[in-house]
Amino acid sequence: MPRVAGCSVLAVQEREQPGEIVVDQPGPRVFRTDLRLADGRTLRYYDRSPGHDRSALDQRELASVASASEARFDPALGEWVVVASHRQSRTFLPADEDCPLCPTTPTRSTEIPAPDYEVVVFDNRFPSLVAPAGAPPSPAASPDDPSPVGYAVPGWGRCEVVCFTSDHDSSFAALSVAQVETVLAAWQDRTAELSALPEVEQVFVFENCGVEIGVTLSHPHGQIYAYPFQPPRVRRQLDAARRHRARHGSCLWCDLVGAELAERRRIVRESEHWVALVPFASRWPFQVQLYPRRHVADLATLDEAESRDLAVAYLDVIRRFSRLFSTPAPYIAGWQQAPTGEGRELGHLFAEVLTVRRAEGKLKYLAGSESGMGVFVNDVTPERAAARLREVGSGF
Amino acid sequence: MPRVAGCSVLAVQEREQPGEIVVDQPGPRVFRTDLRLADGRTLRYYDRSPGHDRSALDQRELASVASASEARFDPALGEWVVVASHRQSRTFLPADEDCPLCPTTPTRSTEIPAPDYEVVVFDNRFPSLVAPAGAPPSPAASPDDPSPVGYAVPGWGRCEVVCFTSDHDSSFAALSVAQVETVLAAWQDRTAELSALPEVEQVFVFENCGVEIGVTLSHPHGQIYAYPFQPPRVRRQLDAARRHRARHGSCLWCDLVGAELAERRRIVRESEHWVALVPFASRWPFQVQLYPRRHVADLATLDEAESRDLAVAYLDVIRRFSRLFSTPAPYIAGWQQAPTGEGRELGHLFAEVLTVRRAEGKLKYLAGSESGMGVFVNDVTPERAAARLREVGSGF
Repeated sequence: MPRVAGCSVLAVQEREQPGEIVVDQPGPRVFRTDLRLADGRTLRYYDRSPGHDRSALDQRELASVASASEARFDPALGEWVVVASHRQSRTFLPADEDCPLCPTTPTRSTEIPAPDYEVVVFDNRFPSLVAPAGAPPSPAASPDDPSPVGYAVPGWGRCEVVCFTSDHDSSFAALSVAQVETVLAAWQDRTAELSALPEVEQVFVFENCGVEIGVTLSHPHGQIYAYPFQPPRVRRQLDAARRHRARHGSCLWCDLVGAELAERRRIVRESEHWVALVPFASRWPFQVQLYPRRHVADLATLDEAESRDLAVAYLDVIRRFSRLFSTPAPYIAGWQQAPTGEGRELGHLFAEVLTVRRAEGKLKYLAGSESGMGVFVNDVTPERAAARLREVGSGF
Repeated sequence: MPRVAGCSVLAVQEREQPGEIVVDQPGPRVFRTDLRLADGRTLRYYDRSPGHDRSALDQRELASVASASEARFDPALGEWVVVASHRQSRTFLPADEDCPLCPTTPTRSTEIPAPDYEVVVFDNRFPSLVAPAGAPPSPAASPDDPSPVGYAVPGWGRCEVVCFTSDHDSSFAALSVAQVETVLAAWQDRTAELSALPEVEQVFVFENCGVEIGVTLSHPHGQIYAYPFQPPRVRRQLDAARRHRARHGSCLWCDLVGAELAERRRIVRESEHWVALVPFASRWPFQVQLYPRRHVADLATLDEAESRDLAVAYLDVIRRFSRLFSTPAPYIAGWQQAPTGEGRELGHLFAEVLTVRRAEGKLKYLAGSESGMGVFVNDVTPERAAARLREVGSGF
């Protein structure tokens, strides 16, 4: 049975077969019920109260999608790339009436068998990283003397889809605080459970929002990737944190938040437990990082007060992005969490939300300098971006 | 007077004032004539024969664009970001009849005063990196004890625009080999001249092609950035090359090309001096690297035979990208060159061409995994991409 650290007490009901409740332990916050989909994938309902009927079964005839995922190591850049060729056939901008993330109706079966839901998390039908077939393997290790060409390991891991609401026409920014609390509890549960898998090195919770950034389903949803290696950004951040700790004996991000709070120019919002700021060296026109004041490793290790404050703080940041322009800005939001293994003590949880929209009707593209050299050119000063994000408010 | 190493013998004529020829040394290949634009920027004509009339002056009233470029260092990622807020007002998708890269006509003045041209290179009116105002500074250095927030230095450097042809409706893929030779000579000249500037650490020659990747001017053109720091990708590649040399005593890329030639599965095309291949850990659906067989630092140090072979080899690769789909694929093409200073002996020149189009009508976006974690997910296996690139041919 999955276990959740921190505040989110969860009751887990596992339905291996219709009606069979394996665990049913009522808790104060969120109740989880698991269901097996027609092709063997797992779907998890997260509800704020017990007693919802989650017994509807997946009635579809659903063949398993062949998965051929590989993680390939590029020795010239020292980075992993995932090659997942089976994803080319994934669902692409379906009409609203064909949305696979809406609840099932009497005339149409979707990914979610129930006629309604609050929050669900299910295994992606077109995953970039796949569950290992046999015995649980270890995280990817590098060979002693790798070829200059590179080398490949199986693309073990997990890719999950998080539906934030059953309302197809809603958005994260339109959720209530209570709904965000449920999403947050689901994120915490998934972080804890996925972190415990032996093949997983890093859990990444994120949301892509907006067709401008290639979102192929408009229903409000996010994703979770559990990687079998330390992603490039994580490795770089840990290296920086290690150097900082060696020199100052303290956490790089704790010190960063302290320095930003002293300077104030790039602070967007602060509350008892959370600080939202625009980083000094922002890559994107509008980019916000949301830090817990306490040194916390990941979402699953937040305490109850931090979790409650986070629901408001995170929603506040997302809402600001929806108010920057005449229409909501497309955005990418993701959680930087400590890795599950080596370097975990160095990691400091934070969310990062960014938009590729640089002005009304204009997008920031990754072109030559960014793609070829890794040098981002930002047309909006971070100080101006912070002032603008303070000014637009969140509507709270 | 600029000097060009390698094969491209250039004659340089500098026109400080109309008709004033400072240098006029006829050479076998390409002739350069410099002109000062109305706001003080330099424009350089590159012609395959001497005697073109390049005396037309810039008749525009052109105010200098205020530049406020900064290079900001992000200590948490160990990377530089360029903040150039004055660029927000840059020219954005002008109508064809307003194109600033077409030759000047009796009724309309553009960036190029001549009534026709072969290849021109001029200083970008909206540069991300700007020429230092006073005495030539040194490359950016890091403070002894940087703040956890980061630190900024002036965004010294150069940004130049390279017009490949005066024909607005053409494209790089439609150029003749002779035209590409002239472009290549201009790239070599600019690489040599910019590399000699004391504030420059890295010269990056590139082309963004296609509205899908944010190109704001459709006239066939590329760009050159001269950075005052080692870009993140360069630093990573040098680190890898240093490790490889320590272990094997040889160049990482020389060994990589050798191993790929032995394996053959990802080779797209080879000729006497150049090898085009799809990297084993490609980040993009179609990504080609074009390597000289000899260990060469940059474009300016190619010999004559390599340069002549390169014009055909590079054009061949670009043409293949235009034949992958029913319409030419948008692409980013860039040259990885050795840095001008530290680590220069480790660098190995290569071109990289990639497209963001993953299938007919579908683009690869940088979403959560790429932006948040630095993990690219590629839907097309490199071996299949190489087979497809071999199959489509180049039309030569």
